[in-house]
Amino acid sequence: MTYNIYFEPIGHLVSGIKGDTIYTTSIRSGISLGSICGGKSSCGRCKVRILSGRCSPITKNEKMHLSEEEIRDGYRLACIARILSDLKIMLPQITLAQPRLQLKGIEPKIEIDPVISLYNLKLSEPSLENPLPNWENIVKTLDKHHNLRNLKIDIHLLRDLNSIIQNLKREVSVSVRGNEIIGICNKREKHLGIAIDLGTTKIAAYLVDLFTGETLKVRGIVNPQIVYGEDIMTRISYAMKNGVKDLRLAVCKNINDLIRDFLKNLKNIDEIVIVGNTVMHHLLLGLPVEQLGKAPYVPVIRQAMDIKARDLGLNMTPLAYIHLLPNIAGFIGSDHVAMLLATEINKSKKNTIGIDIGTNTEVALSVKGEISSLSCASGPAFEGARIKHGMRAAKGAIEKVNIKNSAVSYKVIGDIAPIGICGSGILDIISQLRQEKIIDHRGRLQNHDLTRKTDNGQEFVLVLKNNSGITQDIVITQNDIGEIQLAKAAIRTGINILLNDFGITEEQIDQIIVAGAFGTFINIESAVRIGMLPSIPLNHITQVGNAAGIGAKLALISKQHRSLANKIANKVKYNELTIHPKFSHEFSHSLQIP
Amino acid sequence: MTYNIYFEPIGHLVSGIKGDTIYTTSIRSGISLGSICGGKSSCGRCKVRILSGRCSPITKNEKMHLSEEEIRDGYRLACIARILSDLKIMLPQITLAQPRLQLKGIEPKIEIDPVISLYNLKLSEPSLENPLPNWENIVKTLDKHHNLRNLKIDIHLLRDLNSIIQNLKREVSVSVRGNEIIGICNKREKHLGIAIDLGTTKIAAYLVDLFTGETLKVRGIVNPQIVYGEDIMTRISYAMKNGVKDLRLAVCKNINDLIRDFLKNLKNIDEIVIVGNTVMHHLLLGLPVEQLGKAPYVPVIRQAMDIKARDLGLNMTPLAYIHLLPNIAGFIGSDHVAMLLATEINKSKKNTIGIDIGTNTEVALSVKGEISSLSCASGPAFEGARIKHGMRAAKGAIEKVNIKNSAVSYKVIGDIAPIGICGSGILDIISQLRQEKIIDHRGRLQNHDLTRKTDNGQEFVLVLKNNSGITQDIVITQNDIGEIQLAKAAIRTGINILLNDFGITEEQIDQIIVAGAFGTFINIESAVRIGMLPSIPLNHITQVGNAAGIGAKLALISKQHRSLANKIANKVKYNELTIHPKFSHEFSHSLQIP
Repeated sequence: MTYNIYFEPIGHLVSGIKGDTIYTTSIRSGISLGSICGGKSSCGRCKVRILSGRCSPITKNEKMHLSEEEIRDGYRLACIARILSDLKIMLPQITLAQPRLQLKGIEPKIEIDPVISLYNLKLSEPSLENPLPNWENIVKTLDKHHNLRNLKIDIHLLRDLNSIIQNLKREVSVSVRGNEIIGICNKREKHLGIAIDLGTTKIAAYLVDLFTGETLKVRGIVNPQIVYGEDIMTRISYAMKNGVKDLRLAVCKNINDLIRDFLKNLKNIDEIVIVGNTVMHHLLLGLPVEQLGKAPYVPVIRQAMDIKARDLGLNMTPLAYIHLLPNIAGFIGSDHVAMLLATEINKSKKNTIGIDIGTNTEVALSVKGEISSLSCASGPAFEGARIKHGMRAAKGAIEKVNIKNSAVSYKVIGDIAPIGICGSGILDIISQLRQEKIIDHRGRLQNHDLTRKTDNGQEFVLVLKNNSGITQDIVITQNDIGEIQLAKAAIRTGINILLNDFGITEEQIDQIIVAGAFGTFINIESAVRIGMLPSIPLNHITQVGNAAGIGAKLALISKQHRSLANKIANKVKYNELTIHPKFSHEFSHSLQIP
Repeated sequence: MTYNIYFEPIGHLVSGIKGDTIYTTSIRSGISLGSICGGKSSCGRCKVRILSGRCSPITKNEKMHLSEEEIRDGYRLACIARILSDLKIMLPQITLAQPRLQLKGIEPKIEIDPVISLYNLKLSEPSLENPLPNWENIVKTLDKHHNLRNLKIDIHLLRDLNSIIQNLKREVSVSVRGNEIIGICNKREKHLGIAIDLGTTKIAAYLVDLFTGETLKVRGIVNPQIVYGEDIMTRISYAMKNGVKDLRLAVCKNINDLIRDFLKNLKNIDEIVIVGNTVMHHLLLGLPVEQLGKAPYVPVIRQAMDIKARDLGLNMTPLAYIHLLPNIAGFIGSDHVAMLLATEINKSKKNTIGIDIGTNTEVALSVKGEISSLSCASGPAFEGARIKHGMRAAKGAIEKVNIKNSAVSYKVIGDIAPIGICGSGILDIISQLRQEKIIDHRGRLQNHDLTRKTDNGQEFVLVLKNNSGITQDIVITQNDIGEIQLAKAAIRTGINILLNDFGITEEQIDQIIVAGAFGTFINIESAVRIGMLPSIPLNHITQVGNAAGIGAKLALISKQHRSLANKIANKVKYNELTIHPKFSHEFSHSLQIP
């Protein structure tokens, strides 16, 4: 039995099977809800409002996540409510909210030296006296004039070889990659590549001219795997239960769409470089990820790979190769290598920290050319999870906060009435609360004009109901503060352990480079003030944007950088934080707010 | 509008579109009719009998191909009769007849040295202290103990790597091909390969143990492309009109079926070697063939190729490679190279002719280690085409004939009443007719007890109606004799031109090796007597069976023979017969029957 399920305000009509949850139905139809737990009924982020039609009765679990007013208005959790008739469903903004993407980044000037070489040839016509196939003509000419040997050709190109040569009136430009001919075209044609930063939340893609290095187009999309759960562990759980195929196909489809979108009015793509954390890397390749979720967190493969795009199901560019930069460990992926490549930390003579903050935060410390990296389980608090009014950095999120003498001011993404707080807003709040002594160094909320007691302890009132875009006051609870303390302690512990292992102190750090979307939008001052980042002069801390994406681009346009990425991956010493003897001590110390 | 079309005696019920020909409908349903012209209404070989139902009215063209009795009995040409209602159709034996396949061949003893090497490894378990991925463990071990560098791995295998290793309790046998790991398995497992001779009419396949060289199974099937026309030129015409895709998919499907059939109760295939004439080679690869049908007959590619089976659509063995032996020219394919490899003509110190007789007959002459080859357009007469009662070497065909003092005796394939004459029978007849002086040296039928006059000239009566399995006498017409003269002259012209180019005479030929299905079944004495083959002592002429298939097998189990095949292909001097200055002279001389 199937029913018509109509989703407002996006206007999607989909087919729903009787007894299925609304969440399952939305996933199947590619509608991304704001779930963090991946449908396990624990995050309460998939709220939907039933406008008409019948669902299964409301459960106790749902009542814990919904206010009385919401229940009255027909709100349900999509992962619990089951379809019993045709439905008309409203997706509230917080459920629909798409995260803000960071595409730009600071790009070092490099020499352009792509993996593809071009050779212009004029081919003679075969005759009865000299019936030389075009292919051999090309091979002989490239051997004679350019010393290229053992050339092979992709079967797809071979099928079109003669007709292409004929259409171009036998004047051709041959694209050679290694010992393989991967393209024959007009010599005036552009040669394009795509650099992709495949993040857990977002996919950032850069269309690049391989021979000028110019970025022609930039596109950011939400990683479609998000419908299978917002964080890495949830996706690993999904894969353990259902295999990796759904996750692989979801991301392949979107990359295909992305390429199709890039290629409007453009010719073929010659090369694609993809970076991502190790789980994203594995899911793209269809490799098992189960073992990445448990000690000893071993990747199936770390080394860089070259794979025909079509072997990954990227059929938009059947001749192109995909180059995947190397991974370092289960929780230090090729995106970290790309970040090091883009920030040139490996070249730095200063003591430099490179950090990409997220659900997993990767930290690298470079001291006199030696680099150590580790990954800290900072958790999803900065993405808004486990925070009462937390949300992704999307429209309606409070992203900056100032508290001065009991007056609160804030800035909301999209300049609308606030519906929640995103990570950068939360950092500001903790920092301000501490400065105003509304919390102590252990994070405990003090009695204050702006705090109030509830059944669950103290809470700080940030926005009153009538100023908010939701039906409640927006508050920070004692629990929320605890979550942020855990997150920032995880990061700081990682930094301190790296410093400790190199035998240097906080004061000896010359610079900190903060990469990634979250790092771009945070107030560095707040981050330093709550002790998440070491206390060094603020002008020694740089926010560089999407360094992973830029690193992918460098590997796209420069063979030298591609080989540098391998050198970096081999050189970086990986620290497994959780088995470090100083971990517990550092962690409990870092929980404090200075 | 569609109708039910029922084919007797095979019992296939298929769907036919109103107005379509029966021939088109049978092709679409994979029913192979005995057409030689590929549905062009010129060969008259697709006779069918309409048992019930209505077709378009009979045409003048059909009446030329059918006897009055046949017309009365409801016989039609499938390529002309169009469907106007439900039909019940009887396929006469001659239309259904499947050609006899030759699978065996004389095989030289060689050293086994397959392209795949095996390494037995015991892999240590990764730990938190040493989280080495299995893949790197394998790479390091093979580097350290076997000096293998730059190893890569197929993505399909990588996906299963960890689970395979776990299932085998970390004791594995690694299959390495070049610098690629293509298999991980139990060390006791067999490693199998398939050698395929992809002929225009038949596909012969050999399942081989790669490490013992033993042939485990042999299978012969009719090339399914035969539904698109029986000879090469008809298939080229089809491809020019409709593209190569249908032809490619037809042969891929059958090879997949063949592999599936081989693999019942068996494990994976590691390697496949395929040989065939240049058109079969191109159609398998999906390469254009149009240019092979016209001067200067240039192949798209000649060199040997290694292609992942899945890239050709051979999905039964996703990890295996297909190795295609090199072609020499448009009409000298890798089957000729394989024949030379199997017969070891290249090693011979004698003056040796190697010949594979068919619609195109390839001839090689080796003199003191130098080899020249050419292709003669011997035409389809030996396949029974253009011969009044000609048919393929299938059940019901007269395959041997003896005429002595006006008494005719013959042998029929399958020991049933004869329904036609196949190529070997025709050769015998011509030879006997000449010996009995029933024809003169120009092939003209003389007045004789066994000949009679008709409106179309003299004819020789081989089988009277009441002894035949058809409703007519089986005869040899003056026209039939002419067709055979053309065919044998083409072959002998090729041989003579090779002799001439090397400056040697017929008497200086030390041996003749006759390969291929047709060559296996002919009476060599007849072939020599009519002047098709040079007159040398019969015991210097050897019939070696399917040498092309054996050559493919040698290349499957021996790297050395694979490289030898390349050397042979490079070394063989190709002669384009049609532009040879002596062609016309030799040809008209060779028409005579000595």
